[in-house]
Amino acid sequence: MHDVYTIKEKILSRNAELADENRRILKERGIFTVNIISSPGAGKTSIIEKTLESLTDRCRVAVIEGDLQTEIDSTRLKRYGIPVRQITTGRTCHLDAHMVHHTLPWLMEQGDIELLIIENVGNMVCPAEYDLGEDMKVVVMSVPEGDDKPLKYPSIFHASDILIINKIDLVGYTNFNIDRARENALRINPGLEVFETSCTQGKGIKRWCELLLSRIPARR
Amino acid sequence: MHDVYTIKEKILSRNAELADENRRILKERGIFTVNIISSPGAGKTSIIEKTLESLTDRCRVAVIEGDLQTEIDSTRLKRYGIPVRQITTGRTCHLDAHMVHHTLPWLMEQGDIELLIIENVGNMVCPAEYDLGEDMKVVVMSVPEGDDKPLKYPSIFHASDILIINKIDLVGYTNFNIDRARENALRINPGLEVFETSCTQGKGIKRWCELLLSRIPARR
Repeated sequence: MHDVYTIKEKILSRNAELADENRRILKERGIFTVNIISSPGAGKTSIIEKTLESLTDRCRVAVIEGDLQTEIDSTRLKRYGIPVRQITTGRTCHLDAHMVHHTLPWLMEQGDIELLIIENVGNMVCPAEYDLGEDMKVVVMSVPEGDDKPLKYPSIFHASDILIINKIDLVGYTNFNIDRARENALRINPGLEVFETSCTQGKGIKRWCELLLSRIPARR
Repeated sequence: MHDVYTIKEKILSRNAELADENRRILKERGIFTVNIISSPGAGKTSIIEKTLESLTDRCRVAVIEGDLQTEIDSTRLKRYGIPVRQITTGRTCHLDAHMVHHTLPWLMEQGDIELLIIENVGNMVCPAEYDLGEDMKVVVMSVPEGDDKPLKYPSIFHASDILIINKIDLVGYTNFNIDRARENALRINPGLEVFETSCTQGKGIKRWCELLLSRIPARR
Protein backbone atom coordinates (compact mmCIF):
# COMPACT_ATOMS: atom_id res chain seq x y z
CA MET A 1 0.00 0.00 0.00
CA HIS A 2 1.29 3.46 -0.85
CA ASP A 3 2.08 5.76 2.00
CA VAL A 4 -1.13 7.61 2.89
CA TYR A 5 0.62 10.93 3.34
CA THR A 6 2.28 10.72 -0.09
CA ILE A 7 -1.15 10.08 -1.61
CA LYS A 8 -2.58 13.04 0.28
CA GLU A 9 0.25 15.31 -0.91
CA LYS A 10 -0.50 14.26 -4.49
CA ILE A 11 -4.20 14.93 -4.07
CA LEU A 12 -3.52 18.36 -2.59
CA SER A 13 -1.00 19.23 -5.29
CA ARG A 14 -3.47 18.29 -8.07
CA ASN A 15 -6.14 20.22 -6.24
CA ALA A 16 -3.90 23.29 -6.13
CA GLU A 17 -3.28 23.11 -9.89
CA LEU A 18 -6.98 22.88 -10.66
CA ALA A 19 -7.76 25.65 -8.16
CA ASP A 20 -5.32 27.91 -10.02
CA GLU A 21 -7.11 27.10 -13.26
CA ASN A 22 -10.49 27.89 -11.68
CA ARG A 23 -9.06 31.18 -10.40
CA ARG A 24 -7.70 32.13 -13.83
CA ILE A 25 -11.06 31.37 -15.53
CA LEU A 26 -13.07 33.27 -12.90
CA LYS A 27 -10.70 36.24 -13.01
CA GLU A 28 -10.91 36.45 -16.82
CA ARG A 29 -14.68 36.73 -16.50
CA GLY A 30 -14.38 39.45 -13.87
CA ILE A 31 -15.95 37.27 -11.16
CA PHE A 32 -14.95 37.82 -7.53
CA THR A 33 -15.18 34.51 -5.64
CA VAL A 34 -15.67 33.90 -1.95
CA ASN A 35 -15.35 30.52 -0.16
CA ILE A 36 -17.30 30.45 3.12
CA ILE A 37 -16.32 27.87 5.74
CA SER A 38 -17.61 27.04 9.23
CA SER A 39 -18.88 24.32 11.56
CA PRO A 40 -22.33 22.94 10.82
CA GLY A 41 -24.95 25.42 11.94
CA ALA A 42 -22.74 28.49 12.44
CA GLY A 43 -24.99 30.40 10.06
CA LYS A 44 -23.30 30.31 6.63
CA THR A 45 -26.62 30.02 4.77
CA SER A 46 -28.25 32.76 6.87
CA ILE A 47 -25.34 35.09 6.17
CA ILE A 48 -25.67 34.37 2.44
CA GLU A 49 -29.45 35.03 2.65
CA LYS A 50 -28.84 38.42 4.27
CA THR A 51 -26.11 39.15 1.72
CA LEU A 52 -28.49 38.37 -1.15
CA GLU A 53 -31.22 40.54 0.40
CA SER A 54 -28.79 43.43 0.37
CA LEU A 55 -26.88 42.79 -2.88
CA THR A 56 -29.16 41.28 -5.54
CA ASP A 57 -30.27 44.77 -6.64
CA ARG A 58 -26.72 46.02 -6.70
CA CYS A 59 -24.69 43.29 -8.42
CA ARG A 60 -25.10 39.95 -10.18
CA VAL A 61 -24.54 37.11 -7.71
CA ALA A 62 -24.45 33.33 -8.10
CA VAL A 63 -24.09 30.71 -5.35
CA ILE A 64 -22.54 27.25 -5.27
CA GLU A 65 -23.92 25.29 -2.36
CA GLY A 66 -21.93 22.39 -0.87
CA ASP A 67 -23.65 19.79 1.32
CA LEU A 68 -23.21 16.12 2.14
CA GLN A 69 -26.89 15.52 1.45
CA THR A 70 -30.17 17.36 0.73
CA GLU A 71 -30.96 20.54 -1.20
CA ILE A 72 -32.37 22.31 1.89
CA ASP A 73 -29.92 25.20 1.63
CA SER A 74 -30.08 25.69 -2.14
CA THR A 75 -33.89 25.73 -1.90
CA ARG A 76 -33.57 28.47 0.73
CA LEU A 77 -31.32 30.52 -1.56
CA LYS A 78 -33.25 30.05 -4.82
CA ARG A 79 -36.04 32.16 -3.32
CA TYR A 80 -33.83 35.17 -3.98
CA GLY A 81 -34.14 34.63 -7.73
CA ILE A 82 -30.42 34.13 -8.34
CA PRO A 83 -28.60 31.19 -9.95
CA VAL A 84 -27.81 28.50 -7.35
CA ARG A 85 -25.96 25.26 -8.07
CA GLN A 86 -26.02 22.43 -5.53
CA ILE A 87 -23.06 20.10 -5.06
CA THR A 88 -23.90 17.11 -2.85
CA THR A 89 -20.67 15.48 -1.77
CA GLY A 90 -22.03 12.27 -0.23
CA ARG A 91 -19.37 11.13 2.26
CA THR A 92 -16.82 13.78 1.32
CA CYS A 93 -16.36 16.33 4.08
CA HIS A 94 -15.29 19.32 1.96
CA LEU A 95 -15.59 20.80 -1.52
CA ASP A 96 -12.55 20.51 -3.78
CA ALA A 97 -11.34 22.37 -6.87
CA HIS A 98 -12.47 19.53 -9.14
CA MET A 99 -16.10 19.74 -7.97
CA VAL A 100 -16.08 23.50 -8.47
CA HIS A 101 -14.42 23.12 -11.88
CA HIS A 102 -17.37 21.02 -13.03
CA THR A 103 -19.78 23.84 -12.21
CA LEU A 104 -17.93 26.44 -14.34
CA PRO A 105 -19.74 25.66 -17.64
CA TRP A 106 -23.05 26.15 -15.80
CA LEU A 107 -21.76 29.37 -14.27
CA MET A 108 -20.72 30.73 -17.70
CA GLU A 109 -24.30 30.27 -18.90
CA GLN A 110 -25.69 32.52 -16.15
CA GLY A 111 -24.85 35.84 -17.82
CA ASP A 112 -22.37 38.33 -16.46
CA ILE A 113 -21.96 37.17 -12.89
CA GLU A 114 -19.82 39.52 -10.78
CA LEU A 115 -19.82 37.77 -7.42
CA LEU A 116 -19.67 34.02 -6.80
CA ILE A 117 -20.34 32.84 -3.26
CA ILE A 118 -19.35 29.24 -2.49
CA GLU A 119 -20.81 27.75 0.68
CA ASN A 120 -18.58 24.89 1.76
CA VAL A 121 -19.63 21.75 3.66
CA GLY A 122 -20.01 22.40 7.41
CA ASN A 123 -16.59 21.43 8.72
CA MET A 124 -13.90 23.43 10.51
CA VAL A 125 -11.04 21.12 9.54
CA CYS A 126 -10.71 19.69 6.03
CA PRO A 127 -11.99 22.64 3.92
CA ALA A 128 -8.96 24.61 5.16
CA GLU A 129 -6.70 22.43 3.03
CA TYR A 130 -8.61 22.56 -0.26
CA ASP A 131 -8.18 25.72 -2.32
CA LEU A 132 -11.17 26.01 -4.68
CA GLY A 133 -9.81 28.89 -6.76
CA GLU A 134 -11.46 31.58 -4.64
CA ASP A 135 -10.18 35.12 -4.16
CA MET A 136 -11.11 35.23 -0.50
CA LYS A 137 -11.58 32.60 2.21
CA VAL A 138 -14.07 33.48 4.94
CA VAL A 139 -14.32 31.57 8.22
CA VAL A 140 -17.52 31.96 10.22
CA MET A 141 -17.57 31.16 13.94
CA SER A 142 -20.76 31.57 15.93
CA VAL A 143 -21.08 32.76 19.49
CA PRO A 144 -22.54 29.53 20.97
CA GLU A 145 -19.49 27.58 19.76
CA GLY A 146 -17.26 29.34 22.29
CA ASP A 147 -14.45 31.87 22.04
CA ASP A 148 -11.69 29.23 22.19
CA LYS A 149 -12.37 27.87 18.69
CA PRO A 150 -9.53 29.75 16.91
CA LEU A 151 -7.02 28.07 19.23
CA LYS A 152 -8.56 24.62 18.83
CA TYR A 153 -9.06 24.73 15.04
CA PRO A 154 -6.18 27.01 14.01
CA SER A 155 -5.70 25.84 10.42
CA ILE A 156 -8.90 27.38 9.08
CA PHE A 157 -8.28 30.67 10.93
CA HIS A 158 -4.75 30.67 9.59
CA ALA A 159 -5.91 30.08 5.99
CA SER A 160 -8.71 32.68 5.98
CA ASP A 161 -8.76 36.36 4.99
CA ILE A 162 -11.95 37.25 6.83
CA LEU A 163 -13.48 36.14 10.13
CA ILE A 164 -17.19 36.62 10.68
CA ILE A 165 -18.30 36.24 14.30
CA ASN A 166 -21.99 35.40 13.86
CA LYS A 167 -24.98 35.17 16.23
CA ILE A 168 -23.72 38.05 18.35
CA ASP A 169 -27.35 38.45 19.53
CA LEU A 170 -26.68 35.35 21.69
CA VAL A 171 -23.69 36.82 23.55
CA GLY A 172 -25.77 37.64 26.63
CA TYR A 173 -26.94 34.03 26.99
CA THR A 174 -23.51 32.40 26.84
CA ASN A 175 -20.06 32.86 28.38
CA PHE A 176 -18.67 34.00 25.00
CA ASN A 177 -16.34 36.98 25.21
CA ILE A 178 -16.00 38.84 21.89
CA ASP A 179 -12.71 40.52 22.80
CA ARG A 180 -11.22 37.17 23.76
CA ALA A 181 -12.50 35.59 20.53
CA ARG A 182 -10.90 38.35 18.43
CA GLU A 183 -7.68 38.09 20.41
CA ASN A 184 -7.53 34.29 19.97
CA ALA A 185 -8.21 34.62 16.23
CA LEU A 186 -5.64 37.38 15.70
CA ARG A 187 -3.08 35.36 17.64
CA ILE A 188 -3.42 32.64 14.97
CA ASN A 189 -3.64 35.09 12.05
CA PRO A 190 -2.89 38.79 12.65
CA GLY A 191 -4.03 39.60 9.09
CA LEU A 192 -7.67 38.57 9.63
CA GLU A 193 -10.28 41.24 9.02
CA VAL A 194 -13.04 40.69 11.58
CA PHE A 195 -16.80 41.27 11.18
CA GLU A 196 -19.46 40.81 13.86
CA THR A 197 -22.91 39.86 12.60
CA SER A 198 -26.36 38.85 13.75
CA CYS A 199 -28.60 37.55 10.97
CA THR A 200 -31.73 37.62 13.15
CA GLN A 201 -31.13 41.30 13.96
CA GLY A 202 -29.48 42.20 10.63
CA LYS A 203 -26.42 43.57 12.41
CA GLY A 204 -23.04 43.89 10.68
CA ILE A 205 -24.38 42.79 7.29
CA LYS A 206 -24.06 46.21 5.66
CA ARG A 207 -20.33 46.52 6.31
CA TRP A 208 -19.78 42.96 5.07
CA CYS A 209 -21.74 43.65 1.86
CA GLU A 210 -19.81 46.87 1.24
CA LEU A 211 -16.59 44.90 1.49
CA LEU A 212 -17.84 42.39 -1.10
CA LEU A 213 -18.94 45.15 -3.50
CA SER A 214 -15.60 46.94 -3.15
CA ARG A 215 -13.77 43.79 -4.25
CA ILE A 216 -15.68 43.22 -7.52
CA PRO A 217 -13.14 44.04 -10.25
CA ALA A 218 -15.47 46.08 -12.50
CA ARG A 219 -16.49 48.27 -9.55
CA ARG A 220 -13.07 49.14 -8.26
CA MET B 1 -1.45 6.65 -8.45
CA HIS B 2 -3.67 4.15 -6.69
CA ASP B 3 -7.35 4.80 -6.72
CA VAL B 4 -8.16 7.02 -3.75
CA TYR B 5 -11.27 5.09 -2.85
CA THR B 6 -9.43 1.76 -2.79
CA ILE B 7 -6.89 3.30 -0.44
CA LYS B 8 -9.67 4.62 1.76
CA GLU B 9 -11.39 1.21 1.87
CA LYS B 10 -8.08 -0.31 2.99
CA ILE B 11 -7.62 2.30 5.67
CA LEU B 12 -11.16 1.77 6.97
CA SER B 13 -10.82 -2.01 6.91
CA ARG B 14 -7.56 -1.88 8.92
CA ASN B 15 -9.22 0.59 11.28
CA ALA B 16 -12.13 -1.82 11.80
CA GLU B 17 -9.76 -4.68 12.68
CA LEU B 18 -7.90 -2.58 15.21
CA ALA B 19 -11.18 -1.23 16.62
CA ASP B 20 -12.31 -4.82 17.22
CA GLU B 21 -9.07 -5.50 19.04
CA ASN B 22 -9.54 -2.37 21.19
CA ARG B 23 -13.09 -3.49 21.97
CA ARG B 24 -11.95 -6.98 22.98
CA ILE B 25 -9.26 -5.58 25.31
CA LEU B 26 -11.62 -3.04 26.89
CA LYS B 27 -14.34 -5.63 27.35
CA GLU B 28 -11.94 -8.07 29.05
CA ARG B 29 -11.13 -5.35 31.57
CA GLY B 30 -14.81 -4.65 32.18
CA ILE B 31 -14.57 -1.12 30.76
CA PHE B 32 -17.63 0.42 29.11
CA THR B 33 -16.52 2.83 26.36
CA VAL B 34 -18.34 5.81 24.90
CA ASN B 35 -17.29 7.79 21.80
CA ILE B 36 -18.75 11.32 21.80
CA ILE B 37 -18.99 13.15 18.47
CA SER B 38 -20.28 16.59 17.46
CA SER B 39 -19.53 19.81 15.62
CA PRO B 40 -16.99 22.13 17.22
CA GLY B 41 -18.56 23.92 20.17
CA ALA B 42 -21.71 21.80 20.55
CA GLY B 43 -20.76 21.18 24.17
CA LYS B 44 -18.99 17.79 24.30
CA THR B 45 -16.52 18.95 26.95
CA SER B 46 -19.25 20.62 29.03
CA ILE B 47 -21.34 17.43 28.94
CA ILE B 48 -18.31 15.44 30.08
CA GLU B 49 -17.68 17.96 32.88
CA LYS B 50 -21.27 17.57 34.12
CA THR B 51 -20.96 13.80 33.79
CA LEU B 52 -17.80 13.79 35.90
CA GLU B 53 -19.43 16.02 38.54
CA SER B 54 -22.16 13.44 38.86
CA LEU B 55 -20.24 10.19 38.43
CA THR B 56 -16.74 10.48 39.90
CA ASP B 57 -18.06 9.46 43.33
CA ARG B 58 -20.02 6.58 41.88
CA CYS B 59 -17.69 4.87 39.39
CA ARG B 60 -14.13 4.99 38.12
CA VAL B 61 -13.94 7.10 34.96
CA ALA B 62 -11.14 7.94 32.54
CA VAL B 63 -11.24 10.31 29.55
CA ILE B 64 -9.40 10.35 26.23
CA GLU B 65 -9.52 13.81 24.75
CA GLY B 66 -9.14 14.30 20.98
CA ASP B 67 -8.21 17.72 19.57
CA LEU B 68 -6.36 19.07 16.54
CA GLN B 69 -4.34 21.35 18.81
CA THR B 70 -4.07 22.54 22.42
CA GLU B 71 -4.74 20.87 25.75
CA ILE B 72 -7.51 23.32 26.69
CA ASP B 73 -10.11 20.59 27.10
CA SER B 74 -7.96 18.08 28.93
CA THR B 75 -6.90 20.84 31.35
CA ARG B 76 -10.61 21.52 31.98
CA LEU B 77 -11.24 17.85 32.72
CA LYS B 78 -8.17 17.15 34.87
CA ARG B 79 -9.70 19.42 37.52
CA TYR B 80 -12.06 16.55 38.33
CA GLY B 81 -9.13 14.46 39.55
CA ILE B 82 -9.59 11.65 37.06
CA PRO B 83 -7.12 10.22 34.52
CA VAL B 84 -7.22 12.21 31.27
CA ARG B 85 -5.13 11.46 28.21
CA GLN B 86 -4.81 14.04 25.42
CA ILE B 87 -4.47 13.00 21.77
CA THR B 88 -3.58 15.95 19.52
CA THR B 89 -4.21 14.93 15.93
CA GLY B 90 -2.56 17.87 14.13
CA ARG B 91 -4.26 18.03 10.72
CA THR B 92 -6.28 14.85 11.15
CA CYS B 93 -9.98 15.60 11.52
CA HIS B 94 -10.99 12.53 13.57
CA LEU B 95 -9.66 10.01 16.04
CA ASP B 96 -8.97 6.52 14.72
CA ALA B 97 -8.61 3.08 16.31
CA HIS B 98 -4.83 3.21 16.02
CA MET B 99 -4.58 6.42 18.07
CA VAL B 100 -6.83 4.93 20.74
CA HIS B 101 -4.88 1.65 20.69
CA HIS B 102 -1.73 3.56 21.65
CA THR B 103 -3.43 4.91 24.77
CA LEU B 104 -4.42 1.45 26.08
CA PRO B 105 -1.16 0.74 27.98
CA TRP B 106 -1.63 4.08 29.77
CA LEU B 107 -5.26 3.22 30.48
CA MET B 108 -4.30 -0.15 31.98
CA GLU B 109 -2.04 1.64 34.46
CA GLN B 110 -4.93 3.72 35.83
CA GLY B 111 -6.39 1.04 38.10
CA ASP B 112 -9.79 -0.52 37.62
CA ILE B 113 -11.45 1.90 35.25
CA GLU B 114 -15.13 1.11 34.62
CA LEU B 115 -16.11 3.86 32.22
CA LEU B 116 -13.97 5.31 29.41
CA ILE B 117 -15.26 8.46 27.74
CA ILE B 118 -13.61 9.39 24.44
CA GLU B 119 -14.18 12.94 23.21
CA ASN B 120 -13.64 12.97 19.46
CA VAL B 121 -12.38 15.92 17.37
CA GLY B 122 -15.15 18.45 16.65
CA ASN B 123 -16.43 17.27 13.28
CA MET B 124 -19.84 15.98 12.17
CA VAL B 125 -18.54 14.09 9.15
CA CYS B 126 -15.39 11.98 9.31
CA PRO B 127 -15.63 10.57 12.86
CA ALA B 128 -18.76 8.70 11.74
CA GLU B 129 -16.60 6.40 9.62
CA TYR B 130 -13.93 5.51 12.19
CA ASP B 131 -14.89 2.90 14.76
CA LEU B 132 -12.60 3.30 17.79
CA GLY B 133 -13.67 0.11 19.56
CA GLU B 134 -16.36 1.83 21.63
CA ASP B 135 -19.52 0.19 22.96
CA MET B 136 -21.67 3.22 22.26
CA LYS B 137 -21.47 6.13 19.83
CA VAL B 138 -23.05 9.38 21.01
CA VAL B 139 -23.79 12.29 18.68
CA VAL B 140 -24.34 15.69 20.27
CA MET B 141 -26.20 18.42 18.39
CA SER B 142 -26.74 21.80 20.00
CA VAL B 143 -29.78 24.03 19.65
CA PRO B 144 -28.06 26.99 17.92
CA GLU B 145 -26.91 24.68 15.10
CA GLY B 146 -30.48 24.28 13.85
CA ASP B 147 -32.97 21.41 13.79
CA ASP B 148 -32.12 20.41 10.19
CA LYS B 149 -28.69 19.00 11.05
CA PRO B 150 -29.75 15.30 11.12
CA LEU B 151 -30.92 15.62 7.49
CA LYS B 152 -27.79 17.44 6.37
CA TYR B 153 -25.23 15.27 8.20
CA PRO B 154 -27.04 11.92 8.21
CA SER B 155 -24.07 9.56 8.46
CA ILE B 156 -23.23 10.42 12.07
CA PHE B 157 -26.89 10.20 13.15
CA HIS B 158 -27.15 6.89 11.35
CA ALA B 159 -24.04 5.52 13.05
CA SER B 160 -24.91 6.61 16.60
CA ASP B 161 -26.79 4.88 19.43
CA ILE B 162 -27.56 8.02 21.41
CA LEU B 163 -28.45 11.58 20.44
CA ILE B 164 -27.94 14.36 22.97
CA ILE B 165 -29.68 17.62 22.09
CA ASN B 166 -27.63 20.13 24.10
CA LYS B 167 -28.05 23.82 25.01
CA ILE B 168 -31.83 23.48 25.31
CA ASP B 169 -31.69 26.63 27.48
CA LEU B 170 -31.18 28.55 24.20
CA VAL B 171 -34.37 27.26 22.51
CA GLY B 172 -36.27 30.47 23.26
CA TYR B 173 -33.65 32.62 21.51
CA THR B 174 -33.53 30.66 18.24
CA ASN B 175 -35.97 29.14 15.73
CA PHE B 176 -34.99 25.62 16.84
CA ASN B 177 -37.93 23.24 17.21
CA ILE B 178 -37.16 20.27 19.48
CA ASP B 179 -39.96 18.09 18.09
CA ARG B 180 -38.79 18.70 14.54
CA ALA B 181 -35.18 17.95 15.55
CA ARG B 182 -36.22 14.63 17.11
CA GLU B 183 -38.36 13.80 14.11
CA ASN B 184 -35.51 14.56 11.67
CA ALA B 185 -33.08 12.47 13.72
CA LEU B 186 -35.45 9.51 14.08
CA ARG B 187 -36.16 9.62 10.35
CA ILE B 188 -32.44 8.94 9.77
CA ASN B 189 -32.15 6.42 12.62
CA PRO B 190 -35.32 5.18 14.35
CA GLY B 191 -33.20 3.34 16.95
CA LEU B 192 -31.67 6.52 18.45
CA GLU B 193 -32.26 7.10 22.15
CA VAL B 194 -32.67 10.87 22.62
CA PHE B 195 -31.59 13.01 25.60
CA GLU B 196 -32.15 16.73 26.03
CA THR B 197 -29.57 18.58 28.12
CA SER B 198 -28.51 22.00 29.27
CA CYS B 199 -25.09 22.11 30.89
CA THR B 200 -25.55 25.67 32.17
CA GLN B 201 -28.79 24.68 33.90
CA GLY B 202 -27.79 21.07 34.66
CA LYS B 203 -30.88 19.72 32.91
CA GLY B 204 -31.05 16.17 31.57
CA ILE B 205 -27.66 15.19 32.98
CA LYS B 206 -29.06 12.86 35.65
CA ARG B 207 -30.90 10.62 33.17
CA TRP B 208 -27.81 10.51 30.93
CA CYS B 209 -25.58 9.52 33.87
CA GLU B 210 -28.01 6.82 34.98
CA LEU B 211 -27.85 5.37 31.47
CA LEU B 212 -24.04 5.27 31.61
CA LEU B 213 -24.02 3.61 35.06
CA SER B 214 -26.54 1.00 33.93
CA ARG B 215 -24.26 -0.01 31.06
CA ILE B 216 -21.13 -0.69 33.15
CA PRO B 217 -20.72 -4.48 33.05
CA ALA B 218 -19.91 -4.99 36.76
CA ARG B 219 -23.01 -3.01 37.79
CA ARG B 220 -25.56 -4.76 35.64
